[in-house]
Amino acid sequence: MEIFRDLALILLCAKFMGLLAKRFGAPQVVGEIIAGLLIGPGVLNLVRPSDYITTSAEIGVVLLMFMAGLSTNLKELIKTGPMALLIACVGVFVPLIGGTLLYSCFYGFSSVGSDEFFKAVFIGVILTATSVSITVETLKELGKLEGRLGTIITGAAIIDDVIGIIVLTFVIGFKDKGSSVGGVLLRTLLFMVFCMTVGIGVYYLFKYIDKHHPHQRRIPILSLALCLGMAYIAETYFSIADITGAYVAGILLCNLQDSKYINEKMDVSSYIFFGPVFFASIGIKTQFSDFSAEVIIFSICFVLVGLLTKIIGCGLTAKAFKMSSSDALKVGIGMMTRGEVALIVSQKGLDVGLLDEKFFTAVILLILVSSISTPILLKLLFNRDEKKAHAELQSKV
Amino acid sequence: MEIFRDLALILLCAKFMGLLAKRFGAPQVVGEIIAGLLIGPGVLNLVRPSDYITTSAEIGVVLLMFMAGLSTNLKELIKTGPMALLIACVGVFVPLIGGTLLYSCFYGFSSVGSDEFFKAVFIGVILTATSVSITVETLKELGKLEGRLGTIITGAAIIDDVIGIIVLTFVIGFKDKGSSVGGVLLRTLLFMVFCMTVGIGVYYLFKYIDKHHPHQRRIPILSLALCLGMAYIAETYFSIADITGAYVAGILLCNLQDSKYINEKMDVSSYIFFGPVFFASIGIKTQFSDFSAEVIIFSICFVLVGLLTKIIGCGLTAKAFKMSSSDALKVGIGMMTRGEVALIVSQKGLDVGLLDEKFFTAVILLILVSSISTPILLKLLFNRDEKKAHAELQSKV
Repeated sequence: MEIFRDLALILLCAKFMGLLAKRFGAPQVVGEIIAGLLIGPGVLNLVRPSDYITTSAEIGVVLLMFMAGLSTNLKELIKTGPMALLIACVGVFVPLIGGTLLYSCFYGFSSVGSDEFFKAVFIGVILTATSVSITVETLKELGKLEGRLGTIITGAAIIDDVIGIIVLTFVIGFKDKGSSVGGVLLRTLLFMVFCMTVGIGVYYLFKYIDKHHPHQRRIPILSLALCLGMAYIAETYFSIADITGAYVAGILLCNLQDSKYINEKMDVSSYIFFGPVFFASIGIKTQFSDFSAEVIIFSICFVLVGLLTKIIGCGLTAKAFKMSSSDALKVGIGMMTRGEVALIVSQKGLDVGLLDEKFFTAVILLILVSSISTPILLKLLFNRDEKKAHAELQSKV
Repeated sequence: MEIFRDLALILLCAKFMGLLAKRFGAPQVVGEIIAGLLIGPGVLNLVRPSDYITTSAEIGVVLLMFMAGLSTNLKELIKTGPMALLIACVGVFVPLIGGTLLYSCFYGFSSVGSDEFFKAVFIGVILTATSVSITVETLKELGKLEGRLGTIITGAAIIDDVIGIIVLTFVIGFKDKGSSVGGVLLRTLLFMVFCMTVGIGVYYLFKYIDKHHPHQRRIPILSLALCLGMAYIAETYFSIADITGAYVAGILLCNLQDSKYINEKMDVSSYIFFGPVFFASIGIKTQFSDFSAEVIIFSICFVLVGLLTKIIGCGLTAKAFKMSSSDALKVGIGMMTRGEVALIVSQKGLDVGLLDEKFFTAVILLILVSSISTPILLKLLFNRDEKKAHAELQSKV
């Protein structure tokens, strides 16, 4: 089977480049994405995107989100809830406006409600959703996922996915008149009610298994089934992103005695197979074609607007909550990653005629730049602060 | 994604039925296959075979074979080598002749070399290859994989796969005149040379990593890449079954310090995801159609011949090596499973016009009956002998 060769190459190159990235002080995720770029059609053309890789990458994303939910500190999230919510809201609307203005500057301002206007707004919509998975992976590598900052960033990124998808549904709805504002709000509300009611049952079922059969194989297997099931239900019955469903599934189980045990077993499946496949697949999907001067200039501006609007929007909001400048910057940078959601939104825009194919290059460039620079910058910031704290501690002693 | 729902259902039902089977004293594998039957198109029609499930099942098989290779006791295999080889040879030729005679009894004897003759021989070819994966999984569950009996059965099943595939290539070659006897032998020889030379390099590379970075993630990840790579190379460049390549990859690493660590991590990926998907997929693929009286009678005879020829052929050979009757019976029963290789061979026969589609039902019935009865019978035999040994020990005390 051809797929064995592809997977062997992906695992080999992703691990090798990951270790190389680590040696240069960058997180392994960066190396894995670059590995995908190298072996993909863009450079060496050893591995081409296939259905199996795409689906496995999708499972990888869902697993990462599930693990993020599993290691959520619920008490911390409730404490940081209002702050995460506001950061997410500002972090959606600043890029939304930034993207709309960018398109208008390049292709002219149009009257509100016209087709060109919605095309401009759509460029903004692409910029709304933070890719939480790359940030989560980076925070995990840095050992900061469970701290206060990690919880705020993860929480805000999750909420901003939800808001981003609501905005998307609104924009498409206004163009297609297919889905109504009320319908979208109702679905989100219904999903919350569903999670509360079914969630309580699931929680007590797992608690029972947990108590009578601790540390047994059935626990991680049923958890994985729950994670995949919730991802499916969220997407199919509530039109909410599958990753949101998986994250909620993780939160449902995060208070179990065995949540650490589940996380451990999921982690093995993730780092051995699904994780490398997901991150490499981002690189593999990238194709360097359609490069006119106009597209290049637009793409560079698009990337700058994408990064700066998140840093400014989320950073200033964090600062308004009396965070230190350094921590506020970390929140802004943690929120600037874009990934699979930006790709999914772009694909949807292409399907309904709100996005031209030539803008795909810009989206992929943004994903690459943000997913390579966020881990590096976050690592630098955390290291600098730790050194500073260490120096202060020593000067006091 | 529809596949999330399918996978969630497979994991949930496979685990539930596996635990139920365990409660009734049967191995979990049996429950997992029955779970596949129940949710598949044959009964409840909840999950249909899809490309993703088929490929994941294929990876599951390769992983199982790799783990079987990894836990091989090389010294024991060399000691039991000649015995395993002879058991495998007799275990191939008795079913080959049995199958040919069965077809001839039903549809008339034909002159050697005619088309009908090769069709009769092909029914025998389907019966040649033992499915080692179900036996390995059962032996693992019983804790007997690493003992002398486990090594003999696994070794014989591996060798018999190789012989079975050589026989298949011969029969197709005689009909198609595409591949020659010499070519097949040469390829097998070249693969052995390839494994020896590349294998030494790989072994020392892993030994180096093992020494300098013990118990690190890179070891299981690179092992998985090696396993998939060897499976691909065996199939593509040497026309040898991918599972044989994976098994050889496991043997290459079985003497490492960290082989237990690798096995542990592979085991998690296998029991959490790839294992249940593989065993459930056997059930899911089964469809109950085409049931004429003739097909039913032929199928029942086919199953009986398939089971008895292996028990008699392998069991008597084991007995000839001065094994106890009870152990010889275990060898015979351990060798009677058929699985993915029988399916692959049948598919090939269909492609080249040596097998009629109506015989597929018989093949699937044989796979089901053998993969359900082998684990149950082996467990009973092992338990009986342990009780007997225990009683003898107590009477001595």
